[in-house]
Amino acid sequence: MAPYVHERSRYNLEDGALPTQWYNIQADLAHPLAPYLGADGQPADPAALAAIFPPPLIEQEVSTERWFDIPGAVLDVLHTYRPGPLNRARQFEKALGLPDNVHIYYKYEGINASGSHKANTAIPQAYYNKISGISKLSTETGAGQWGSALSMAGAQLGIEVEVFMVGVSYDQKPYRRIFMECFGAKVHRSPTTLTQAGRAMLAKDPDTLGSLGLAISEAVEVAATHPDVNYSLGSVLNHVALHQTIIGQEAILQMELAGEEPDVVIACIGGGSNFAGLAFPWYLRRKEGKTKTRLLAAEPKACPTLTAGAYEYDFGDEAKLTPQMMMYTLGHDFVPPGIHAGGLRYHGDSPLVSQLVHDGEVEATSVWQKDVFAAALEFARSEALLPAPESAHAIAAAAAEAKAAAEAGEARTILFGLSGHGFLDLSAYENYISGKLQDYDFATGAVVE
Amino acid sequence: MAPYVHERSRYNLEDGALPTQWYNIQADLAHPLAPYLGADGQPADPAALAAIFPPPLIEQEVSTERWFDIPGAVLDVLHTYRPGPLNRARQFEKALGLPDNVHIYYKYEGINASGSHKANTAIPQAYYNKISGISKLSTETGAGQWGSALSMAGAQLGIEVEVFMVGVSYDQKPYRRIFMECFGAKVHRSPTTLTQAGRAMLAKDPDTLGSLGLAISEAVEVAATHPDVNYSLGSVLNHVALHQTIIGQEAILQMELAGEEPDVVIACIGGGSNFAGLAFPWYLRRKEGKTKTRLLAAEPKACPTLTAGAYEYDFGDEAKLTPQMMMYTLGHDFVPPGIHAGGLRYHGDSPLVSQLVHDGEVEATSVWQKDVFAAALEFARSEALLPAPESAHAIAAAAAEAKAAAEAGEARTILFGLSGHGFLDLSAYENYISGKLQDYDFATGAVVE
Repeated sequence: MAPYVHERSRYNLEDGALPTQWYNIQADLAHPLAPYLGADGQPADPAALAAIFPPPLIEQEVSTERWFDIPGAVLDVLHTYRPGPLNRARQFEKALGLPDNVHIYYKYEGINASGSHKANTAIPQAYYNKISGISKLSTETGAGQWGSALSMAGAQLGIEVEVFMVGVSYDQKPYRRIFMECFGAKVHRSPTTLTQAGRAMLAKDPDTLGSLGLAISEAVEVAATHPDVNYSLGSVLNHVALHQTIIGQEAILQMELAGEEPDVVIACIGGGSNFAGLAFPWYLRRKEGKTKTRLLAAEPKACPTLTAGAYEYDFGDEAKLTPQMMMYTLGHDFVPPGIHAGGLRYHGDSPLVSQLVHDGEVEATSVWQKDVFAAALEFARSEALLPAPESAHAIAAAAAEAKAAAEAGEARTILFGLSGHGFLDLSAYENYISGKLQDYDFATGAVVE
Repeated sequence: MAPYVHERSRYNLEDGALPTQWYNIQADLAHPLAPYLGADGQPADPAALAAIFPPPLIEQEVSTERWFDIPGAVLDVLHTYRPGPLNRARQFEKALGLPDNVHIYYKYEGINASGSHKANTAIPQAYYNKISGISKLSTETGAGQWGSALSMAGAQLGIEVEVFMVGVSYDQKPYRRIFMECFGAKVHRSPTTLTQAGRAMLAKDPDTLGSLGLAISEAVEVAATHPDVNYSLGSVLNHVALHQTIIGQEAILQMELAGEEPDVVIACIGGGSNFAGLAFPWYLRRKEGKTKTRLLAAEPKACPTLTAGAYEYDFGDEAKLTPQMMMYTLGHDFVPPGIHAGGLRYHGDSPLVSQLVHDGEVEATSVWQKDVFAAALEFARSEALLPAPESAHAIAAAAAEAKAAAEAGEARTILFGLSGHGFLDLSAYENYISGKLQDYDFATGAVVE
């Protein structure tokens, strides 16, 4: 039979062609990262974290070594879904009406059961805690992707997982809760009576719907008060960004297969680990003189941390339980409007990404959620993939870059990260297609037409 | 950095290595397929189907040509998600405690947005109707996979899609409805007042929850009474099985990459197209003397068409609107217990698969749904993929084959088809993990402990 005459779209790596090291951008910053500050306002001692994190993760958090070897047992589990796909979005390019010299590629992280890039750090976090003698991980989840990823990793590596799920999410997102339970996790509706923080809140307001800040407090309290329990965080921190760098390392090999060098690398940003995972290896490549690519973080206009926040020391949580970090922030008490990309509703941002933005190494843009959903559906209908609303911020930014290049008559190669699928976000899509979805001014909460 | 020392698990085909022809098993049957019978009990004239199907599909339905070329425009759309993955389930093998000489491979069809193999026939059906001057396809959906696939294909190929969704499913599965609407389909809660069949039912019982038979009647009526509308069916028929054979053709190339010949090829079966798609190319390979593999269809014990049904002429639907087909059937008025694998609750079976079972070319087995969900979770936790309940029938059958081989001390290579993902089936998983899920005797409906 005649072969299929095709334009190549898929750039699969060989089975087993996994990155075997994580890239630590702290080795290559123009100046050292500002230290975390403790409750006394002085630089925090990393050892203070030992009550809730295992030693290998604390070491990764503060190290300036360029490369960390990925343990074989971690590679074996990553290997169940990696290396991941990188595709050229040819049908999406056609749908956008782009000229021949504007190309869009995307790196997809939604293959694993938990459905997003979060698995890339959940697996090593479960591993390092297990080998450090920890029997259980406690964590919080709002939108649910992180709790799902840690539950899956716990099942794969044999460590218990206890999730404090924000009450309102617990009520509204039963599928996410069930998913975690499928993987053996114990899921609590936060606040609970299991912790002092939870009991205090329930005494004050028995009908509370909970909050992410409170769920964090509960998860941290459980870890801090039980020697065999540690806490696990899915974004923001340096070691989380480190684990995600397998994404960008794979993408570099795959763009080499495609024979193209991107002019811009785009990823959505909430806490920052997804953006860091794709972009940091490209930062190194640029430093090595092998690329001139721009690095662009796409955030929601309803929570415009990088584009409208201040670069200053702030707490990671509303309750001021965390150390203070130097980062872009909208204020630790900022409550963003209720947009559907729950994973991007964070007041702050990764200190690493924040410093790079402040230094002019990384650009940031913000996107209205109506434009995000429009781009998501155009992408879904042409490329046969349903994106998560968070991930679709990168699609919208990529489409804007592509259209700008076409209008300027310039060639442009765009690579964006598609961090996860949207099968558990269909109610958000319904809001959009039924015309109920609205955009909000982040400062006033007022509806923007 | 040192390469990852791995045991190979993934057998990706080169980009563009799509099968360019469909395999028509009617060329290789031991004896011709028994003809469909019309309302008068005489062999039906294929031309009678022209009111609801386009000429190319009618030709494919009755042809005995061995190969059909896949049109380039169809290949371009299949190329958005094909060739698909074939993986060795090494972590699942470990979870089952299998010896080194028992291997399990699976071919996965859940990559495309609609989430199952159904897209493989939805795309060519949309194409052939479009080039035949049809502007709209009408169809029914129960569990929702088929409606999702046809909606996606309609968006990709530019043809309208109208879906009659069984009332009770419309109420209970809003995510499936929203998914179809995301891809631009018009979804009705069946019965509607749009058709004579629907109005008659509503007059009789205004509170009816609908049925698949009635939804079929509505969809067929719309097609038969509008010259620019055709009807589209997602399983059972020969041309549907034909389109699915790209699955098995890819799997043969991928098992060659793996350097193994399966001893048994397993797929779940409802109407039969998923099983046909994986198994028929292996049937040809066996006929050519290149393999001795067994072919095994796995069905639910609650709807045991092949293992407990009669091989005789019967209608395809409860309302006796279809031609009669020679097939295994539990009776066109059989209503299976309400198990969670909705896609497998069909009283009959593909005439092609039925004949092969009757001739001893294909084996069949049936599985309890509790065993199905137990196998599904074991697979999910080890392989990082959440299977659809339908697909998990094949997992359970594969695990049983593997354990039997291990107990007998025999080497065995098992290939099974994983027809789709389970992200929209989480309520079924909740039923299982909360202990509410039960098994039923198919004949009496009584709970089986």
